[in-house]
Amino acid sequence: MSVSSFFGRLFGGAAAREPAQVMALCRALLGERGEASGAQLAREVLAAYQTLDAAARERLFDALASDFSPAPAAVGEAARAYERAPSAASLARVQAAAESPRQELFRRLNMASGGTAALVEMRRQVLAGAAAHPAWEAIDADLLHLLRSWFNRGFLRLERIDWRTPALVLEKLMRYEAVHAIQGWDDLRRRLAPDRRCFAFFHPQLPDEPLIFIEVALTESLSAAVQPLLEPGAPVGEVSRARCATFFSISNCQDGLRGISFGNFLIKQVAEELRRELPGVRKFATLSPIPGFRRWLEEADTQLRLGLGGEGEARLGLLRRLADPDWLASPRAAELERLLMPLCAHYLTRERRGAEPLDPVLRFHLGNGASLERLNWRADISAQGLAQSGGIMANYLYRLRKVEHNHELFVREHRIVASREVERLAREAPLEEGAAAAAGHS
Amino acid sequence: MSVSSFFGRLFGGAAAREPAQVMALCRALLGERGEASGAQLAREVLAAYQTLDAAARERLFDALASDFSPAPAAVGEAARAYERAPSAASLARVQAAAESPRQELFRRLNMASGGTAALVEMRRQVLAGAAAHPAWEAIDADLLHLLRSWFNRGFLRLERIDWRTPALVLEKLMRYEAVHAIQGWDDLRRRLAPDRRCFAFFHPQLPDEPLIFIEVALTESLSAAVQPLLEPGAPVGEVSRARCATFFSISNCQDGLRGISFGNFLIKQVAEELRRELPGVRKFATLSPIPGFRRWLEEADTQLRLGLGGEGEARLGLLRRLADPDWLASPRAAELERLLMPLCAHYLTRERRGAEPLDPVLRFHLGNGASLERLNWRADISAQGLAQSGGIMANYLYRLRKVEHNHELFVREHRIVASREVERLAREAPLEEGAAAAAGHS
Amino acid sequence: MSVSSFFGRLFGGAAAREPAQVMALCRALLGERGEASGAQLAREVLAAYQTLDAAARERLFDALASDFSPAPAAVGEAARAYERAPSAASLARVQAAAESPRQELFRRLNMASGGTAALVEMRRQVLAGAAAHPAWEAIDADLLHLLRSWFNRGFLRLERIDWRTPALVLEKLMRYEAVHAIQGWDDLRRRLAPDRRCFAFFHPQLPDEPLIFIEVALTESLSAAVQPLLEPGAPVGEVSRARCATFFSISNCQDGLRGISFGNFLIKQVAEELRRELPGVRKFATLSPIPGFRRWLEEADTQLRLGLGGEGEARLGLLRRLADPDWLASPRAAELERLLMPLCAHYLTRERRGAEPLDPVLRFHLGNGASLERLNWRADISAQGLAQSGGIMANYLYRLRKVEHNHELFVREHRIVASREVERLAREAPLEEGAAAAAGHS
Amino acid sequence: MSVSSFFGRLFGGAAAREPAQVMALCRALLGERGEASGAQLAREVLAAYQTLDAAARERLFDALASDFSPAPAAVGEAARAYERAPSAASLARVQAAAESPRQELFRRLNMASGGTAALVEMRRQVLAGAAAHPAWEAIDADLLHLLRSWFNRGFLRLERIDWRTPALVLEKLMRYEAVHAIQGWDDLRRRLAPDRRCFAFFHPQLPDEPLIFIEVALTESLSAAVQPLLEPGAPVGEVSRARCATFFSISNCQDGLRGISFGNFLIKQVAEELRRELPGVRKFATLSPIPGFRRWLEEADTQLRLGLGGEGEARLGLLRRLADPDWLASPRAAELERLLMPLCAHYLTRERRGAEPLDPVLRFHLGNGASLERLNWRADISAQGLAQSGGIMANYLYRLRKVEHNHELFVREHRIVASREVERLAREAPLEEGAAAAAGHS
Repeated sequence: MSVSSFFGRLFGGAAAREPAQVMALCRALLGERGEASGAQLAREVLAAYQTLDAAARERLFDALASDFSPAPAAVGEAARAYERAPSAASLARVQAAAESPRQELFRRLNMASGGTAALVEMRRQVLAGAAAHPAWEAIDADLLHLLRSWFNRGFLRLERIDWRTPALVLEKLMRYEAVHAIQGWDDLRRRLAPDRRCFAFFHPQLPDEPLIFIEVALTESLSAAVQPLLEPGAPVGEVSRARCATFFSISNCQDGLRGISFGNFLIKQVAEELRRELPGVRKFATLSPIPGFRRWLEEADTQLRLGLGGEGEARLGLLRRLADPDWLASPRAAELERLLMPLCAHYLTRERRGAEPLDPVLRFHLGNGASLERLNWRADISAQGLAQSGGIMANYLYRLRKVEHNHELFVREHRIVASREVERLAREAPLEEGAAAAAGHS
Repeated sequence: MSVSSFFGRLFGGAAAREPAQVMALCRALLGERGEASGAQLAREVLAAYQTLDAAARERLFDALASDFSPAPAAVGEAARAYERAPSAASLARVQAAAESPRQELFRRLNMASGGTAALVEMRRQVLAGAAAHPAWEAIDADLLHLLRSWFNRGFLRLERIDWRTPALVLEKLMRYEAVHAIQGWDDLRRRLAPDRRCFAFFHPQLPDEPLIFIEVALTESLSAAVQPLLEPGAPVGEVSRARCATFFSISNCQDGLRGISFGNFLIKQVAEELRRELPGVRKFATLSPIPGFRRWLEEADTQLRLGLGGEGEARLGLLRRLADPDWLASPRAAELERLLMPLCAHYLTRERRGAEPLDPVLRFHLGNGASLERLNWRADISAQGLAQSGGIMANYLYRLRKVEHNHELFVREHRIVASREVERLAREAPLEEGAAAAAGHS
Repeated sequence: MSVSSFFGRLFGGAAAREPAQVMALCRALLGERGEASGAQLAREVLAAYQTLDAAARERLFDALASDFSPAPAAVGEAARAYERAPSAASLARVQAAAESPRQELFRRLNMASGGTAALVEMRRQVLAGAAAHPAWEAIDADLLHLLRSWFNRGFLRLERIDWRTPALVLEKLMRYEAVHAIQGWDDLRRRLAPDRRCFAFFHPQLPDEPLIFIEVALTESLSAAVQPLLEPGAPVGEVSRARCATFFSISNCQDGLRGISFGNFLIKQVAEELRRELPGVRKFATLSPIPGFRRWLEEADTQLRLGLGGEGEARLGLLRRLADPDWLASPRAAELERLLMPLCAHYLTRERRGAEPLDPVLRFHLGNGASLERLNWRADISAQGLAQSGGIMANYLYRLRKVEHNHELFVREHRIVASREVERLAREAPLEEGAAAAAGHS
Repeated sequence: MSVSSFFGRLFGGAAAREPAQVMALCRALLGERGEASGAQLAREVLAAYQTLDAAARERLFDALASDFSPAPAAVGEAARAYERAPSAASLARVQAAAESPRQELFRRLNMASGGTAALVEMRRQVLAGAAAHPAWEAIDADLLHLLRSWFNRGFLRLERIDWRTPALVLEKLMRYEAVHAIQGWDDLRRRLAPDRRCFAFFHPQLPDEPLIFIEVALTESLSAAVQPLLEPGAPVGEVSRARCATFFSISNCQDGLRGISFGNFLIKQVAEELRRELPGVRKFATLSPIPGFRRWLEEADTQLRLGLGGEGEARLGLLRRLADPDWLASPRAAELERLLMPLCAHYLTRERRGAEPLDPVLRFHLGNGASLERLNWRADISAQGLAQSGGIMANYLYRLRKVEHNHELFVREHRIVASREVERLAREAPLEEGAAAAAGHS
């Protein structure tokens, strides 16, 4: 059951209400009745909210966005008083004036049993409509502010997921897996076998709902391809011989918590956990997709730079073979490898939009303090893997002692720490630099 | 172990640090290093903080109060922009400008394991010095804002406390009981016997620390005296015959959570819980102290009003007998009862400071929606009970269906809902009304 | 993981041993070394046992059967002493003499962690070979005696199985279901939906191994057909409207516990449990197969009796149509119903082998004190249902107040308590009574 | 609550019954009604039993002892058949004939919820009266047989007891401690502080009842005196510096389980547990009383042997000073030490009754495979310690690798493995050997 259906079950069954009625209940909850019987009234608001159809919910969100924002004049006055005479008291007043009544409303809604789940679901709905209703961003901002505080790292519990986990939770992994889809219970079971590890963060208020989860393969050496890891019938390895933990999938689960980052914490805590459990495991690395490589390859500007020089035409011709679905089996696959691997290394380490590297997965891991260790040919030969990156995947290495240093290099100097092997590959990329400079994305 | 000593144990053992070093760590935690390795750095800050002695802590708090407040000019500017053109975006900007960097600092500190306990303890220390350091109120305001959000009713778990509860927790009840001190394990055991109930709120991050707890006696009729309830050797009643639940003690446990109100929720949820468990129990009421009665009785103004009229002198003479520690055993005790009971009813229902009734316990229960049901003579004959109220105690009645209505009457119209019996008693109080009017507390 | 594979994992990995070595270890365990380090030595024995292949295990069982039985002369002597002078002391001696040393051996093996699982698995292996090795029955008798004592009802825990149960356990339900095979996770999930209940007995030493489990449908009226209950896509009923609990499947899980009866206890305790949880449910009944009906119908003697009389030939002709796999869809299905239903009622209520009714499922439920309530046409139209009973199923009714009385009627007087409707049906069966008497199974 | 009071609470409240009524219920439970509704009927039997007063219970036990024993003639006949033709079948028959119907009765009583506790309590009552009623030994034998099987080591859970343990259980430690009485909650708390360990065995059917528990002090070197370990105000040691685990108290808790030995298992499993938790702890030893030393010293024969020779009179004179309660503070205490320590070593290592050493505590530990490491002067200066052994205590050493070997030496050759230091002391004992031989305990 998702947060959404849980929410439905908990507050469902009532007769449909009008948005105006819900607003009246919200006002009561913010007033004296809310002080006397907050939890009860919060429950009523959520039950009424639950009866609204999409159109009615839209009108409610419009009202929430307009009616429960702070009064501009009051904010201005309090701000001026703080400017004139900054003190604990004048600061308290300006903060009180600037806080939306919505925040207090949401805090009171949270008192209902199931309230946190309801607010996560409400934010999912707000986000889904925010593009079409810019005013709702004010609602989103208040929900995000609260949820970020409530889902603070300190309140999350790391839990191991294995074959002893309730089916109720396992089923959600199948739904939420966003990197390498789980094909069913047999596939899942292999991913939870003794030579695999899976961990998730949970919040005490959403005990059956993983917030994010990560899948790890314990192997003798660094994994260079993902299909062997996913093969349901693959023999189960001997854990005592594992030297390497390959993180091959990480998925956020809750749309309503978008923008609250859990991945960085999760990877590091799982690495600590594994180090404790398995002292023989010394290397922690990912096997990650490179989602933007082929898109970049096909940009007009890239094509232009590739086409320059003596062998430009031949290169472009070779690349066009990627359109053939069976290119990997063709006799020219080895040639393509010699061309694509350097280009991919170049793409990851040199191409930027402003100061930022282009590839989002690289940005995530380097932002966490990892380094780019290795590129792997024929690493993800699924349709998606071929479409995104010609089947190439990257290993990002988490050296726990270097993580802080790498992070600072990346944030301050935009440095991409990569292995010598990757650097060497990148230098071999047959791209005309002059053109690159000319077309530079600044 | 208290939050304080838990905190000590968790982060203790390091060499003493300078406040400036702690501030430098705080700045790092708010900066890039905090993004890369927040939980680890948060732990370092708290460990360093833990090494500070009282003087060093004072300097740290001074720095926290001055350095981490929002910049007045920036607040003013953002407020003006919001005044000029209110929108989700300009609102977001003024809220961001008005929030203290301290808030983000505290949120990041919370990521450390044990961080919540550490922040509760830190607020306890801030509060203890706030009177002498008014600037610290800004720190307190930020901590209070966060803690109120994190200790939202929705995150608390109600737990029954009984003889199966770990000794670790039971021991804390003995320390925290604030109304009728627990004399030792035998006393405690009687309070947890089958004809008693004890419930507490816990927070997931402080699993061994009750936040507030309440003690209840299950009896055949409404309890009129507290000593029989506390007697360790009293025979244990047959629960199936209980018709009344008397709430005879409620104690907040955490100084660091002062100002966050749990009592109202606790009483109501316990009443719900008991109604479910024991359908035979139909009456829910307190047996409460009247802490301000004798203090009011001895005020000059009260004495003046009592002394007027024909029997004024005799009354004052009678009241002076209260100075004799054994007055309750004296032949004139019955006369005193006839004098004090009406005066106490008057004190509770008529005397106000502004619109507010004088007695804090009455304010709490009527604010929760209870009504004043009965006054009891010889109800608390402990030294404290005699000193506070001449041994009189009050029953406040929680009728679950009337709670919301009573609360509104109290909040809007300052009405004190009392039984006819109490009203009748109050009318008999031999106070000269003219004088009262003349001296009226407006 | 089954008991068997659990056992393998726990004690696996050692080099293969000889049966004689295992016997030597067993003797050591029964001797002084066993007293000093019993648990450790027990573990060694089980690890060594685990290395034996089938042939070696056979030789071990032969040795266990011959070497560890009591000495006949000693038993005789002690028995004579008890006959001469019965006393607590002489009784103790004859009991000690008659007990096999195997029993003490097994008790000591049980001290190893995982020992109980190992002994259950050992008995499974003994039973599997007992037909070919009659001497092993002595081993079986000792194991059965101990296991019956250790799996006493008082030590079992009833647990509800639902979608929150670990996948590890759910998977076993799929393997162990013996009545209506579970087709996969979707099928299982429907059987655990809110309008179903599933309960199992567990033993503290085998926490992941159900011993027996039962599946229940909560319905508005008594279920008359099983396919609708098993349909994965069937809409989920509203539990609050359920008036009837239909027990539609009960499966023993452990071959090594054969002969230890759990079903009677399970049905009754589940009925109690459901009565507590759902006061609206007033009828507890099974929907059960009739495994022996068609076998009986095809016996020569039955055919003979059916063929007598004026319409005999026509009846036999009609019955032969059952050979057509699609007979149920044929125009003569209604005629077959009119013939088969009375015959089935007759088969269940009248046909006996000696005093015992023929049908094993009827024997089980009537032995538990249930009564035969109703027969249902087209109730199980699976291939197996049609083959066993022409698709007919029976409802056995558990009236908790009558269970003891019915049981006594059944055990003492061999009375089959059936509803008037079933009795009426049975009387209509077109069987020649004379022939029945002539061919009577005595 | 003890097993006894638990039992009372569970089955209490019924009107008093006659022993004959209870016997009739027992017969019903063994008969058909027992098969149909065993658990319910078992509950009735136990509830009826519970109403019996002491005299009625006596008559019930008499009836149980006489009526439910096996028939001597049937036992004899089955035994003869087994003698004539031993087979699995004839063995099964003689075992069935020799088993008391009482065993089946007790197994069925165990089906009631709380049945195990009830049977443990029943055995306690049987044992309490067995001396006066020798026939009850037959009841005891059957209960012991079953309880030994049910409380098999494999079914026990080792649990750590600390300050997180429910008060309900902690309270029982105070009641059951049999070696060094616990003076109250403060004393108990010190014994559960971080530099102490306490472990108990529990059975799943008696979850709140420790069966046996052991107290351990973690110290830098082997403890030589018990009073410092028991001192409530003693500073808590740093666990990381502990090198030695001193087992200073072990207590059986359940009279109804007398004769079922848990101590040997407990000591060894706790040693394993501590070795895992604290790799720095390398020495596992007891600090044990020597309960028989002074009794032996005062025997006429010992006195005779001490009095012989030149200094005999002086020795006896010195020993008579032990009658002075303050002898330990007297100037001659050092002389007494020089005399008593060798005598005590001699008593422990040389004095026997037949082949068995005299001291029961020594027999227990050497039977477990420990060795006698050291004697300690002024080790237990409590009144009891002085009365039993002149304040001397022994350290028995558990070297896990030698335990099996020592056990065999002790059991086969009656060898007492002692350190060279103790052996040297024993040789110095001023006892005339000739007299010893003359008066030898055979």
